[in-house]
This record gives sequence, structure tokens and C-alpha cells, in this order.
Amino acid sequence: MAWTNLSHPLKVNNMTRQLHINLFIHSRGHHEASWRHPEASPLALTDIRYFIELAQRAEDGHFDSIFLADQLAVRDDVDRAGRTWLEPITALGALAVSTSRIGLIATASTTYTEPFNLARQFASLDHISNGRVGWNIVTSWSASAARNYGDAGQASHADRYASADEYLEVVKSLWDSWADDAIVDDRESGQYAVGERIRPVDYTGHYYKVSGPLNIPRGPQGWPVLIQAGSSDAGRRFAARHAEAVFTAHMEKATAKAFYGDLKSLVRAQGRAEDQTLILPGLSPVIGSSEAEAQRLAQELNDLADPEVGRDRLSGRFGGVDFSHLPLDKPLSPEDFPDPATVEAARSRTELIIGVVRREKPTLRQLLSKLASARGHFTVTGTPEQIADLIEDWFTDGVADGVNLMPPLLPKMLDIFIDEVIPLLQQRGLFRTAYEGETLRSHYGLERPNTSFE
Amino acid sequence: MAWTNLSHPLKVNNMTRQLHINLFIHSRGHHEASWRHPEASPLALTDIRYFIELAQRAEDGHFDSIFLADQLAVRDDVDRAGRTWLEPITALGALAVSTSRIGLIATASTTYTEPFNLARQFASLDHISNGRVGWNIVTSWSASAARNYGDAGQASHADRYASADEYLEVVKSLWDSWADDAIVDDRESGQYAVGERIRPVDYTGHYYKVSGPLNIPRGPQGWPVLIQAGSSDAGRRFAARHAEAVFTAHMEKATAKAFYGDLKSLVRAQGRAEDQTLILPGLSPVIGSSEAEAQRLAQELNDLADPEVGRDRLSGRFGGVDFSHLPLDKPLSPEDFPDPATVEAARSRTELIIGVVRREKPTLRQLLSKLASARGHFTVTGTPEQIADLIEDWFTDGVADGVNLMPPLLPKMLDIFIDEVIPLLQQRGLFRTAYEGETLRSHYGLERPNTSFE
Repeated sequence: MAWTNLSHPLKVNNMTRQLHINLFIHSRGHHEASWRHPEASPLALTDIRYFIELAQRAEDGHFDSIFLADQLAVRDDVDRAGRTWLEPITALGALAVSTSRIGLIATASTTYTEPFNLARQFASLDHISNGRVGWNIVTSWSASAARNYGDAGQASHADRYASADEYLEVVKSLWDSWADDAIVDDRESGQYAVGERIRPVDYTGHYYKVSGPLNIPRGPQGWPVLIQAGSSDAGRRFAARHAEAVFTAHMEKATAKAFYGDLKSLVRAQGRAEDQTLILPGLSPVIGSSEAEAQRLAQELNDLADPEVGRDRLSGRFGGVDFSHLPLDKPLSPEDFPDPATVEAARSRTELIIGVVRREKPTLRQLLSKLASARGHFTVTGTPEQIADLIEDWFTDGVADGVNLMPPLLPKMLDIFIDEVIPLLQQRGLFRTAYEGETLRSHYGLERPNTSFE
Repeated sequence: MAWTNLSHPLKVNNMTRQLHINLFIHSRGHHEASWRHPEASPLALTDIRYFIELAQRAEDGHFDSIFLADQLAVRDDVDRAGRTWLEPITALGALAVSTSRIGLIATASTTYTEPFNLARQFASLDHISNGRVGWNIVTSWSASAARNYGDAGQASHADRYASADEYLEVVKSLWDSWADDAIVDDRESGQYAVGERIRPVDYTGHYYKVSGPLNIPRGPQGWPVLIQAGSSDAGRRFAARHAEAVFTAHMEKATAKAFYGDLKSLVRAQGRAEDQTLILPGLSPVIGSSEAEAQRLAQELNDLADPEVGRDRLSGRFGGVDFSHLPLDKPLSPEDFPDPATVEAARSRTELIIGVVRREKPTLRQLLSKLASARGHFTVTGTPEQIADLIEDWFTDGVADGVNLMPPLLPKMLDIFIDEVIPLLQQRGLFRTAYEGETLRSHYGLERPNTSFE
């Protein structure tokens, strides 16, 4: 398979292939109990200073980007789950002027946002950030979100991706409705814009009917960087068509490697260059100066986790299936779960969980503890050297183009990663020691989309 | 009429009644040709630094707030009109962390934004700004906007306000779905929120069906400050029910005074205290150290204005009526215009324009020049002393609770206003010399809305 071309560092444009690192900011860390830990940030989760400090810290570490996820409804377990969050687009507006180089990625749903509004807010963020914005494209499926939007949009899994395809066509047309040189701003002659460099959009599809032009000039990046995180078959095909970076969840290297190979070949089959779709698996490392110290911190976090919070969350993953009858300390079997094919939810994640049950036959308590550490992403405890080795192995063995870093405890595990893991990756020639470009496209090595203006 | 109670400065809570001043940021100034003027800001209109500098300058001047207006479609005259703009909500995210005390107001349309999304983004901005955000509520009417949203929403004038009433009910319920003390964030016990202090919303009306709770805790102000700018009969009734501040356009003191009296009595008729709806007429002053200097600058701006841009814009105000047959230099009559009652647009503004034609019988060129200076708002040229006198007169003679300042040229006319007019108003005891409160509600003297939690 051609992705094995990438199985060791190689020269691209006279540059050694470089790792890409995204910081995924979530609660006070990705471990479910992080918010309770005494070393977690003292700031409230609605305090923008918390996000600013993390983004600036990641920028000090020369990360490619930070990422804010989203959900469109309050969770039933809000009382104990330690999670509230700012609306991502407004938060990115604040982060854009609090940082100068790092990329800024927000989730927004195609299901419940008018395409004109979404295209416009991301174009505006691209201007505000001078070309540093990315959009994590999600389609929404939960019944609780649908209720908040007039019960609209609860389409089937396949239909969600078909309508998302149209949505992408619409927003790309809107972003391309202004040529890059449409604004001339000539005070002398009184010509502000060149009318012929702004064109109408007149889209009528199966799901959407949208005109244009957009009411804001094209952003510095042309389009925001397009990111995707669905890993089901339909999600992969969608990613192969549109995504420039993919956040993906795996609990073991083998599935991550298979995913990498499969997605890169799907990207090639679309006629796209495979380095134009970066694959960044989630990685949640508990880092200590010794293995024992790392294990101790991991244990501290697990001891703070409430198994009943985990049980409710598991139920949510399976579209509300009731697991209350399952005892905590008896080994599970796959028959305790519904068939993933019947779950109109984030299907790949349910398959991943049943895979763990099939392979490892954990008790419910053990499964919940495993999920608590990063909700189904890859978790590891180790020393800085061990974490750097793991990332290098993924990067050079056809598993990853970098990592979606999900520190289990914030800011502590981010600080240790930056202070102790990043220098190792830099010494090995795998990671930048300074930003070279100004935009997220430049950090990720992505082409800037052209418009079809003559 | 009771508003004459306010016809001279009086003591409220042991404080002299104080002026409120909002800075309305528009292009490089409110004069249609401002963008071409050599002393206009050198920054691009999509450069967030332009907005940050103006907001910080207004904060130095202790203004209550700044305001960003909006339109949902590119104008046909974009090539010569000198106007592009950032999407207001994303821009406020940036301004929220670039300022610390001044209020931040953005327009958003009830017609083309999901209520859940709008309620959420404003709540998020209220957190990010620590309680400084305001929402200028508009309903959209233009055919060009409707096309950008699938031809939805082009309701009649009356219907627009009926659906906006429902919209307000929905978003208020969402903002009130979290008690102010819902988050306890108790790391020791593992209780993050109190479930009983977060309540469902289940709204089914004629136009909207929305559930909740909102997915973000209540903001520092409870609700954003609610602002309204429609001045038609339906707009006034809507303002009397909901608005906490009203931006209004008048070309002469008499109509502004009549509006003030009428709206305050409508507010009282709703059982609301009249000081809980501030009335801020637009004021666009060309200020010079002598009258002659002010006149010279006004003439410079008028000389830069293109009458054909003005003619197109006038056509837009009347819903696209063709005025191309009207000669520039022949006196107009009201019969040259359609009956405002037949215009499904911003009706009060069309009435205002026809009023000028009836009273003054200007030529088209003269009318366009008058409109060019601030699109139908009150314009004046004079010395700092004369401008301060005018504001004091409005404030003490039942015309205004302050002004919506619309500098014809930015930043120059803002700088002169802050450096030379503000000190006069302060010497007269009419305007603050320091911020006393932290929130926009506090600057405006508005009550904080309570929830009905026990």
C-alpha cells in the first residue's frame, strides 16, 4: 500500500516530514474526573482566560492548532460530569486576538446551522485570526439536540452524510464567491471593489437552496481548514472527499494503522494527494518522570471517577440504551450491547467499545475506567521518553501524521508534554522549533484552495 | 406627559441623571464617502485591529458601549459603497478580550438564526466579556437576504414582529433555564452542578418549537441587554415590550421629541419603568474648532460622495423602486415616492425621507447629500461647545437619554468628540468620569432579570 511510502521520515520539498500536533481542549482535561483533581486549573469552565492560557501555552510549544469540540444539548449527567463549555465560535473570536500563530479549530454542526451563517462566521474568524481557522465538520444525531431545534434534522446515518455533502458544496461556493483580489479600496478613484470579481451563488439541491455572494470577502486561507472526525464507513468516505485533517479515536495501534491505510487509499481514490488529508489519532498520555509516578497520577484520576457517571455516559453513546441492570463487577459479553448497525449515533465509537468487550472481556467497572480516561481514545502512561517513542513509532510506522493531544489533566499534563516531550521530538528532527508560516494551512502543509475566477 | 418629569437633570438614587453614549461603528465613518477621506483609518475594513482601536478609544472616553450593525446580503453597490464588514458576533468575541469595561452590542436577526444558536452565542459572549454584551434585535425583510436563506422568512411587516415576539419568549426561557447558582463546581464532593437548578424548556408556539435547557450556564447579566431600532408603529410596540435601549433615527428635534414621549408612554403602558428603556437617537456631528472648519470638513466629505451611489441606496430603502428617471437638480415632490404603507421594508425610515421631501422640497442631489451624511440620522456641524449644547438640550428637554454617536469620519471625529466634547459634558455633570460598574446593564442603569427559580 502506498501509505507505506510514509513509513519512515522522508524529505518533502527538501524538508524532513514533520509531525503535526493539535491540542484538544476539553473540561479540565480529558480524564472524566480531571475537573475534580487538585492540580486541575482553578478557573471556571466558562472563563475565557482558561482557554486563552492553554492556547498561548500551546503556541509557546509551537503546536499546529488547538481544537474546541461541541455538543448541542446539555447532558443528563451535567450535575456530576464536570463539564460546561463556551460556544466554540465565540470562543475562537476571543482566542484569535489572544494568540498570533497557532491554528484555531472549532466544531460546528451542518445539521442545525444555516449554511450562509456558518460560511460567514468561519470566513469572519479567518479574517480576525489572519488565516488560522479550521472547521471540524460534524453532523448531529442525538434526539436531545434535535429537540432544541424543533425536532428537525434527525435524519438517518446515511442521509446525514448526503446532506452534509450538499452543505459542503454550498459553503465552498459561498467562500469562493469573492475573488481574492475583489477589494481594491481605491480612495482616489472611489472604487472599493471590482464587481466582476464578486459573483452570485444560486444553489438548489435536494436539501439546500442558498444564494450568494457571501456578505464578507474571502478569508486569508480561502476556506477554513476542513476537519472531520467521523470514523464509520460513511464518515471515512466523507473525509476522503472533503477532509484536510482527520481526528480519529483508537484504543490500540493495530486499528489505528488499519484506519490510516484505509483512509489514505480512499483519499487517493478521490484523486486527492494523500498528504492533503492529515490523520491525527487521539492520544491521552499520563506523563511522569518515572513510570511509577505516571501510574500514581493515573490511579489518582481513576479513583476520582464515578462509575455511575460512566454508566450514564455509556448509555448515551448507545443512543440511550439502559445499562442500569448490569452489575459493575461481572465480566461483560458483546450480547450485553445492541448491534452497532442499529445505533443511529456515533457508530464507529460503539463498534470500538464492543471490540474491547469482545477482546478483553472486562467487567463493567473496568470498561468504564478505560473509557473514563479519554472516552475511547488511546491512553498511555509513561515517561517523556516513552511518550516520544510512541509518537515516533506511530509517525514512522504508517499510523499517524501527528497526534491530537488530549491531556488527561489540564494544564498540568500539557505543561509536562511541552516541557519534556516536545524537546525530545525536536531533538529527533520530528517537530518544528519555530513556526515557519503564518496560517493553519501553512502549519499543516495544506494547499490554499483557488477560486475559478479567471 | 410623564416624560416631562425628565425634562431637566434630576437625582436618581442620589445620583444626577447621567447621559449614556454608544459608539456606532460603521465603515470608516457614517458619512457615505468617509472611506475615501485621506484622514480615515488606513486599516482594511476586515482588519479586527480597526475595531479594537475604536473600541479601546471609546473605552478611554468612558462610553457606555459600542455597536456593530449588520446586513444579511451584499449590497448591489458594493463596488463603490466602501463597505464590507466582519460578522458581528465573531467580532464581539475578539473585542470582549481586547477591552475590559465598555459594553459590546451586536445586531443579529431573529429571521435567519435558530433561537437556540442565538441564545447560546449571546450567553457565551456574556461570559467571555464578563457581562458586557447587548443584542440589537432585528427582523429581516429584504428579498436579497431571503434568497441567501432558501427564500424563507420573507414575512409581512406585522408577521415579522409577531414571530419576533415568540422568538424573544423562547430565548428568554433558554437564558433562564439555568439558575444563577446552578454551577457549584465542588471538587471534593464531585458535585459539579445542581440538577434542580437547571430546568427543561418545552416551547411550542405558532412559529417556534424549541426545547432546552440551554447548553451553557446563565451569563453574568442574566440576559444580554436587549436593544431595538425599529421605529415604525409595530417596532415601537415591540420596543415597549422588550427593549432596554432603543437606537432611533431622526432628522429634526421635533420628531425625536415626539418619539421619545410616545415610546416612554408605551413603555409605561406595558407596566415597565420608563428608565428601563433608554432612548438614544443617532447623532452624526462634524466637529471643528470653529464653525468654518467644521463646514469645511463637511464639504470635503460631501464632495467625495457619488450621487449615483446615493440613488441606488435610496432605491434599496424603498424595496427596490427605480428612481433612475429622476433628474438630480429638479425639486422633488412626495409623489415621486411610493406610499410608505406599501413598502415592506424599514418603514419608519421611508416615512422620514418623504417627510423631508414634503417639508423642504429638496432636489434629488440635495436629498442624497443629506442622506449621505448619516443615512437619515441627525447630522450637525459645529464646535465642541455647540455639540455639547445640543446633547445637553436633547437630554434635558425630553428628547433623549443619551446619544448613539455616529462619527461621520473614523477615527478622527471620534477622537475629537472624546478629547473636546466629552470633557464639556463631564464639566456640566452630565457624563461619568470613570466607570462605576462592571457590566453593560450597570452602565445603562438597567435591572438584572431574575429567573423564577425558588
